[in-house]
Amino acid sequence: MNAEKIPDIIITRLPVYLRALQHMADQGIKTTSSQELGEHVGISAAQIRKDISQFGEFGKQGTGYSIPYLLDKLREILKVDRLWDVIIVGAGDMGHALARYQGFANRGFNVVMIFDNDKEKIGKKIGDLAVEDMANLEEKIKSTGIKIAMLTIPASVAQETTDTLVKAGVKAILNYAPISLNVPNNVKVQYIDPATHLQKMTYYL
Amino acid sequence: MNAEKIPDIIITRLPVYLRALQHMADQGIKTTSSQELGEHVGISAAQIRKDISQFGEFGKQGTGYSIPYLLDKLREILKVDRLWDVIIVGAGDMGHALARYQGFANRGFNVVMIFDNDKEKIGKKIGDLAVEDMANLEEKIKSTGIKIAMLTIPASVAQETTDTLVKAGVKAILNYAPISLNVPNNVKVQYIDPATHLQKMTYYL
Repeated sequence: MNAEKIPDIIITRLPVYLRALQHMADQGIKTTSSQELGEHVGISAAQIRKDISQFGEFGKQGTGYSIPYLLDKLREILKVDRLWDVIIVGAGDMGHALARYQGFANRGFNVVMIFDNDKEKIGKKIGDLAVEDMANLEEKIKSTGIKIAMLTIPASVAQETTDTLVKAGVKAILNYAPISLNVPNNVKVQYIDPATHLQKMTYYL
Repeated sequence: MNAEKIPDIIITRLPVYLRALQHMADQGIKTTSSQELGEHVGISAAQIRKDISQFGEFGKQGTGYSIPYLLDKLREILKVDRLWDVIIVGAGDMGHALARYQGFANRGFNVVMIFDNDKEKIGKKIGDLAVEDMANLEEKIKSTGIKIAMLTIPASVAQETTDTLVKAGVKAILNYAPISLNVPNNVKVQYIDPATHLQKMTYYL
């Protein structure tokens, strides 16, 4: 299986399947069908079968999918069968909300550090974490080998901070700053910008 | 121009172009090319030309796009040439962060109300807004005619609250709860779930 050969759009849907399957498992459900899963996620049963079959034969004709088995496989494919250390860069409102968010740990992520350059914030506790000085960002990433960062700083400083993250070895950035970032080809960026999501919906109103 | 005929994936990219063009305009830049815009957003020049040409001939061979003109056109297409009233449902960390976020107003959105069912929170101020009682959600939406809601409540109560929003007339929901929502065909939902975005990236690590 060559990772480069699976279309990106399929990879985008796998975490959605994983989330829905986890939700079913939490309710004690043991098996499901592509039809049932499709109703949960708003994607056609045929598309789900096609997406999942890219990675092997995980379902059985007539009996459907074993949820624990499919969960294991999807976690393995998405590499969240382990716990990834993640840092937050920016201890504003959004950084606070992410630092206190309870939904990461059971989905493969552990927030281990939060950084800011505001002297008023440095050293203050957010949940279990003390805010660290942005001046130490590069060194801390290098010494810990962290690969994933969530960026919650103003757009005006997002590119220069991204350059620092990349230089230090970060390979995946979840960007909350409302600006497109330039990164090398071997670094992934995902964008969370509520205004773009809202603007996509107003088109249809 | 029939809204239903433009592929959804193109509509997804328009707000990204709009954001980049606004960023250029803020820097005093008056014209751009599909090449330059493409470098900003990480999308090919050919794709950008094709996307934009779906809506008319907005660029000129050799001189490129007038940024103010293209901004006007994109805002008109996305219907953010006006200001939409938006409510936040859930005054937790994420609701707080969104209520205080400064990036909505200049992109077409005005947060006018925030709701919670926690008696400790109701009446408390977040920025200029006093938290309203969730018990009044349906009535307040109906009386104001609001069409857009941001949902920042736990997954366990997200579907029932969505049903209330839909019943009250909401047509677009930006959902921060980590669960897929069932809505009628005439209601749009967009999802913001940091864990799914992170999981998409770990696949490539």
